[in-house]
Amino acid sequence: MYNIKAVYLTAKEKQKAGIKMLYGNAIIGQSGGPTAAINATLSGVIRGAFAARDIIGTVYGMRNGIEGFLNENLINLTEAFKNEDDLRILEQTPSAALGSCRKKMKSPDVDPETYEKLIEIFKKYDIRYFFYIGGNDSMDTVSKLSQFAASHDYEMRVIGVPKTVDNDLMVTDHTPGFGSACKYVATTIKEILRDVSVYTVKAVTIVEIMGRDAGWLTTAAALPVISGGKAPDLIYLPERTFDADKFISDIVELQKDHPAILVAISEGIRFADGRYVGEGMAARKVDAFGHVALSGAGKVLEELVKEKIGCKARSIELNLPQRAAAHLASATDISESVAVGRHAVECAVKGESGVMMTIDRAAGDQYSVTFGSADISGIANGVKGVPDEYINAEGNGITEAGIRYLAPLILGELDTVYENGMPKHIVL
Amino acid sequence: MYNIKAVYLTAKEKQKAGIKMLYGNAIIGQSGGPTAAINATLSGVIRGAFAARDIIGTVYGMRNGIEGFLNENLINLTEAFKNEDDLRILEQTPSAALGSCRKKMKSPDVDPETYEKLIEIFKKYDIRYFFYIGGNDSMDTVSKLSQFAASHDYEMRVIGVPKTVDNDLMVTDHTPGFGSACKYVATTIKEILRDVSVYTVKAVTIVEIMGRDAGWLTTAAALPVISGGKAPDLIYLPERTFDADKFISDIVELQKDHPAILVAISEGIRFADGRYVGEGMAARKVDAFGHVALSGAGKVLEELVKEKIGCKARSIELNLPQRAAAHLASATDISESVAVGRHAVECAVKGESGVMMTIDRAAGDQYSVTFGSADISGIANGVKGVPDEYINAEGNGITEAGIRYLAPLILGELDTVYENGMPKHIVL
Repeated sequence: MYNIKAVYLTAKEKQKAGIKMLYGNAIIGQSGGPTAAINATLSGVIRGAFAARDIIGTVYGMRNGIEGFLNENLINLTEAFKNEDDLRILEQTPSAALGSCRKKMKSPDVDPETYEKLIEIFKKYDIRYFFYIGGNDSMDTVSKLSQFAASHDYEMRVIGVPKTVDNDLMVTDHTPGFGSACKYVATTIKEILRDVSVYTVKAVTIVEIMGRDAGWLTTAAALPVISGGKAPDLIYLPERTFDADKFISDIVELQKDHPAILVAISEGIRFADGRYVGEGMAARKVDAFGHVALSGAGKVLEELVKEKIGCKARSIELNLPQRAAAHLASATDISESVAVGRHAVECAVKGESGVMMTIDRAAGDQYSVTFGSADISGIANGVKGVPDEYINAEGNGITEAGIRYLAPLILGELDTVYENGMPKHIVL
Repeated sequence: MYNIKAVYLTAKEKQKAGIKMLYGNAIIGQSGGPTAAINATLSGVIRGAFAARDIIGTVYGMRNGIEGFLNENLINLTEAFKNEDDLRILEQTPSAALGSCRKKMKSPDVDPETYEKLIEIFKKYDIRYFFYIGGNDSMDTVSKLSQFAASHDYEMRVIGVPKTVDNDLMVTDHTPGFGSACKYVATTIKEILRDVSVYTVKAVTIVEIMGRDAGWLTTAAALPVISGGKAPDLIYLPERTFDADKFISDIVELQKDHPAILVAISEGIRFADGRYVGEGMAARKVDAFGHVALSGAGKVLEELVKEKIGCKARSIELNLPQRAAAHLASATDISESVAVGRHAVECAVKGESGVMMTIDRAAGDQYSVTFGSADISGIANGVKGVPDEYINAEGNGITEAGIRYLAPLILGELDTVYENGMPKHIVL
């Protein structure tokens, strides 16, 4: 499915090749929102570090990201994965096995104490390899840390490994975790379409999908078209403004043809004036018990349909399962997620630091990827939206170009190990 | 997994055995809310009818249940499944391939015209075998129709085949479709638990599961305990009244031990005074756009937690996917669902009518079932709730006896056929 050249040279070969040896221990952290593939990347880094054991000594994990690391809340992964078969189970376990955090690091100028403390702990555990798996904020941490270490006489290789179901990181063709979330969204939309099509009465079903600023994951709702199914009748992304009147008139028009209308929306869709569609409710402070509540864009549109059209309406928020449903992971995504973790170790051993790993798609019709690295400083604060050519002219559907981009990312099913009827997980 | 004695005697053998031959065509309908297994039962009836082709001629399907039948909206299933391999795909297709309806039939005394019309269409298509797959209302239709036919000189075998994710039908040990929904709930809860456990801050996650009057499907939330996981901290069913103060104080107590609390509730939980927990909101008539909306019990409890405890809270409604997620079907459920459909044909050919098929569990530790039939008149209007011995004394958890009942129903995974990364479906 992909082609990784894992060149693990021996120490001697490396010296011969002019690669500077850096002996020491490694630490791995996970940060930001979990995905179904972030543990596969963790496994990849562990596999890579084990393969480089002539250079890398003990492999540690930090619990709850950099926050836990500051409290020396570490786990010895070399011990935990003495039985390497357990890595296979780790790869099918959703969410972040090491725990996560949402800490946004201040810059060293503002908060030097934190960075001094970090260096102190690095020295204590002789940590020379630092791998951080996460999204935008995590890459920012990697960027700051690598700069600080470089300028403070502590030689360390600091590597960022991307993950996010949002697929909104710059430079990389796509992010680990995105393909599995797409497979879940595509399959679930296909199943929901079968469910809502059974009755003859007019009804509108609105499915709300994750994506505050970028609509990538919502584009996957269109994928059933390549699997004997249909795309939702209407698809709205944050990349286009949402027009409520047009939405209603489009539904009325569509219902002349078929009664059950399926709509997919990103949680972050907005009106022309910049307000989130779901905002009206979110802004209201209310008490519990019938004196109502926050709600999302799907709920707002459900009410709008009931009011303006008067037919049955239902909204479905895919919620946490869309990022946690490892039972429906994409084999392509999981194998790439493992590979990109291994590649991170390879890059570090070769001397790279302050870089984020990337997945680079080869040109041409046949899907294949290679793994690369990019300077992290330019990546951390950018957001990559869905490009124009993937969105139709009306702004309510996905083009064939979009489908071509997405299709390979969801291919393949894992040979999941089950235990008493449920997928087996590992808890660290 | 189960043992079915499919005794398809030839016409000659049947005459010898004293079974009265009834030659004619068959029709199959699906009714009520869809499940992931209702098409497996459809497939079973088709397989059964094909196997009895010396007696049963053409197999028809009615589109949109009895409602479509009254409009002669029929499909020739003998033609549609000329390639019997397609039945395999039908068995992995969620929802009702023939469409459904929610029609509650009036009694023949009140509405004789409808029944006369039915008999007329039966005669026109020479239909002598009538199979109706559905829940309570569908069994009521079967009951009325079989009585009417019997008293109006039209010989016909009328058979009900149960389905419902609610598992609330009388007499049968469990209903086809329930096991697959349980497998989805159990797996999703297990995955959600991994997701919500990654942070160190206090948070409450409430998962709302289908079940208006009976909490069967919510009991499945406890299943992760037999798969290396944990049950939700608190589980509430409609079989017990809900005490909001106790709910809050239990959470406060639990958070002294761990910060992330997971709660599973049935949509139909009620206060001591009989009000639905989700009712306060449902009763409010409001306009769209921030001027809020219907909501469910989960949303109400989410707001309550925010107000009373002040920590992060989130509610997740499993919604349609819990009954449509054929990609995670229980192999036990699907094979039983097919078998019960075949059994229906067997019973009909042997002369039974006005009966509902049942799944009977053998006593003992080893799970095995046989299929039976029961007079339908006593079944249609009863509701079977979760028995006391499956609910803990505090009314907020599931007992070991409950787990023992549920565990075999979710066992086994289908060897699902995928097409471009999504499960393949058949559309009739």
